[in-house]
Amino acid sequence: MSALRLPEDVMRALGHRGVDLLVEHFARLADDPVSGVKYAPPREWEEVPRAAAPDPLAVLEETCRMLRHGNAHPDHPRFLAFVPSPGNFVSVLAAALATGFAVPGGHRLTGPASADVELTTVRWLVELLGLPPGSGGLFVPGGSMANLTALTVARDRRGPGTAYFSDQTHFSVPRALHVLGVGADRVRRLPSDGAQRLDVDALASAVRRDRRRGLRPFVVVANAGTTSTGAVDPLPRLAEFCRAEGIWLHVDGAFGAAAALTDAGRTLLDGLGLADSWTVDPHKWLFQPAESGCVLLRRPHELRESFGVDLPGYLDNSAAGDGDFLQYGIQLTREFRALRLWLSLKVFGADAFRDAVARGMRNAEEAGRFIDAEPGLELVTAPSLAVLTFRCAGADADRVCRRLATEGYALVMPTTVAGERVLRLCTINPRTSAGELRRIVTRVRELSLDATA
Amino acid sequence: MSALRLPEDVMRALGHRGVDLLVEHFARLADDPVSGVKYAPPREWEEVPRAAAPDPLAVLEETCRMLRHGNAHPDHPRFLAFVPSPGNFVSVLAAALATGFAVPGGHRLTGPASADVELTTVRWLVELLGLPPGSGGLFVPGGSMANLTALTVARDRRGPGTAYFSDQTHFSVPRALHVLGVGADRVRRLPSDGAQRLDVDALASAVRRDRRRGLRPFVVVANAGTTSTGAVDPLPRLAEFCRAEGIWLHVDGAFGAAAALTDAGRTLLDGLGLADSWTVDPHKWLFQPAESGCVLLRRPHELRESFGVDLPGYLDNSAAGDGDFLQYGIQLTREFRALRLWLSLKVFGADAFRDAVARGMRNAEEAGRFIDAEPGLELVTAPSLAVLTFRCAGADADRVCRRLATEGYALVMPTTVAGERVLRLCTINPRTSAGELRRIVTRVRELSLDATA
Repeated sequence: MSALRLPEDVMRALGHRGVDLLVEHFARLADDPVSGVKYAPPREWEEVPRAAAPDPLAVLEETCRMLRHGNAHPDHPRFLAFVPSPGNFVSVLAAALATGFAVPGGHRLTGPASADVELTTVRWLVELLGLPPGSGGLFVPGGSMANLTALTVARDRRGPGTAYFSDQTHFSVPRALHVLGVGADRVRRLPSDGAQRLDVDALASAVRRDRRRGLRPFVVVANAGTTSTGAVDPLPRLAEFCRAEGIWLHVDGAFGAAAALTDAGRTLLDGLGLADSWTVDPHKWLFQPAESGCVLLRRPHELRESFGVDLPGYLDNSAAGDGDFLQYGIQLTREFRALRLWLSLKVFGADAFRDAVARGMRNAEEAGRFIDAEPGLELVTAPSLAVLTFRCAGADADRVCRRLATEGYALVMPTTVAGERVLRLCTINPRTSAGELRRIVTRVRELSLDATA
Repeated sequence: MSALRLPEDVMRALGHRGVDLLVEHFARLADDPVSGVKYAPPREWEEVPRAAAPDPLAVLEETCRMLRHGNAHPDHPRFLAFVPSPGNFVSVLAAALATGFAVPGGHRLTGPASADVELTTVRWLVELLGLPPGSGGLFVPGGSMANLTALTVARDRRGPGTAYFSDQTHFSVPRALHVLGVGADRVRRLPSDGAQRLDVDALASAVRRDRRRGLRPFVVVANAGTTSTGAVDPLPRLAEFCRAEGIWLHVDGAFGAAAALTDAGRTLLDGLGLADSWTVDPHKWLFQPAESGCVLLRRPHELRESFGVDLPGYLDNSAAGDGDFLQYGIQLTREFRALRLWLSLKVFGADAFRDAVARGMRNAEEAGRFIDAEPGLELVTAPSLAVLTFRCAGADADRVCRRLATEGYALVMPTTVAGERVLRLCTINPRTSAGELRRIVTRVRELSLDATA
């Protein structure tokens, strides 16, 4: 085991056992509790391990026990909290291969094939989402990084100045603005309208007021699917307003943009293509494992203007073409994460992705019908993309969700809509069945009755 | 194959074949060319694949051919360019498991066990590097993100103002400052001394000059191992200066900090523990796959002051303890990448890591002796940590490196030292043998003679 090497037969045994445990995870996940809370790590896990493990296989088994029983499972068919990550086995295999072959993903010089695959995958994504041809970008570790990357470009092109978004916007947006040095005094978190959407009139007033004060509005962040209720901001009107005002329009479609794979979704997301930049997280509704994020720009060369560097002496300056991703974002060393989406599209085909997204939307509609049919339960926001919220007459939403989590059958988290605490379901996992959704809704009703008893 | 699912036997077959190809990669890598340039992708790879692949195994095989032959191998024993990523099989397995089990790594509520493992691994790293007890931080996607994270805190605590570092500093530092909104007019890239180190007297003058102009110096970035020559900035003097001036000291030890695992390295890195924050990339000299970075702070709660958010309604506000990593950095969704270092430390033991780091330093010394012994070759900078630079009498360093790359036996890239283009070796891969280093040095000499013929 010198030089951190294992004998071939040990590597093979560990790897095959790891694969078997993963296959079991993917095949039997629905039979496991959705959240892991009953796991206690072995005492000896506390100390820095100085010597080699006598039995690597035993360490592997204990590790997988921890992974399985010590954590919640965002890929579980009944994980309906937050925005789940219903990954797929092929992507996991791709992640393992990209990591295992140590593929360099920042520099065409050392990663010519990986650069081509990433450029191709980004082009596919642009095509599948119906974004303007020529749009492009790169894979990043997630939506927070995608928002930070796009907002950096927005600031560099139009700012620094003031930023605008609704109170339903993901906290990664104000956090990115903080990182960028856009002080809280230049951030406008606008009240949303009755449908949890950015109010264009309120936006226009805020922009006018700021201009009168000599400030320089530089970016509007619109939601293509809020996390809380799946609301879509009025993209066509926002695009028109931003174009007239010379303001950058960034669309955070981390969760929702994937709906554009379907006809129904493309209608709901009308105007998506009119923005200057987009955040899309394949690790949400495109069934990739975390961290698989993507930032896209209408004019991708603008990334280079913000992030391009003069390469130091030990990097080759001759490689300055397409695919030098180190010039287009914050990272230099990059995992070849485009391979995940690429390989799973290759194996399953884009039509399977479209069907899976459609299924997630149908799941929400089915759950909505069950809620409508259940006495005492009432929709607060109708299914939008794949999110709905509802109330239980007389019950405390937080308490009901907590009890549901303790049972381990399903994970549902509450949210706040117009000041009211309500229950919320996000149903993007295509492995979720109507029967499971019906059972969850019924159980929510039982618990709410019990809670008020 | 509905719902992006494969039958169990297909998953198992794909997974086992993938493992076998990875094991082959790890066991036989040294027999492959170090860089991949002769690969041509199949024509049908261009189109968005609409339908499922008739034979997933064939797609896997072609993908692995691309990974193997279409890219360079930073884990190859003769990849001596840049700072290589000599990963290990156990970490790759850990990456696959973390991804495959979809472990949430941002929120203790859903990832209690993964939070504990990450906290433990960070504690181990602090202990192994000899940093002050109580220091802590989190895993991030790499050194660029670690620098950005630490510099955000530095700016929030001490700035905004002016930043200082040597001209040998990694470009991720000025790029992070750009993201932070620290304009080029507030960035001081100071000339390094004859040993490529930050000149403390020049720093003191620059700080004095800026203070006279009413500016507010907020951060000094010191190098614990520059990429170009392995130089270590004078950490004790810098720490003393920064403390006296109330300036934040960030140490970029992305590559070099790992040397502190050895006694010799700890001596070279004297003063490492005196900083306010550190960048350490386990994906470099701690033998992890990309992207495995880490940011550490002397007072880790300061991360929360920069990045902490009020959780929205759909996230649970009750979970606000240690291990809510979403409150301590830029990301929300996070891959459970701490598992990589954790599992490989468990299996190999920390002593094996120490020995492997020591071996990387010895590799550089051995290569230095071969260079000394070869007529026409001459060291320009002596081995420092695991980097050395040298010249070939009368030969063009870039041309020699290019010819070496074309042969595919070894990848060596030139660098610039005091204006001169020279050859450079980074020898951190413990799988590199003295015989291979000797052969590379001999071949460089042959090519240089040929080039001048």
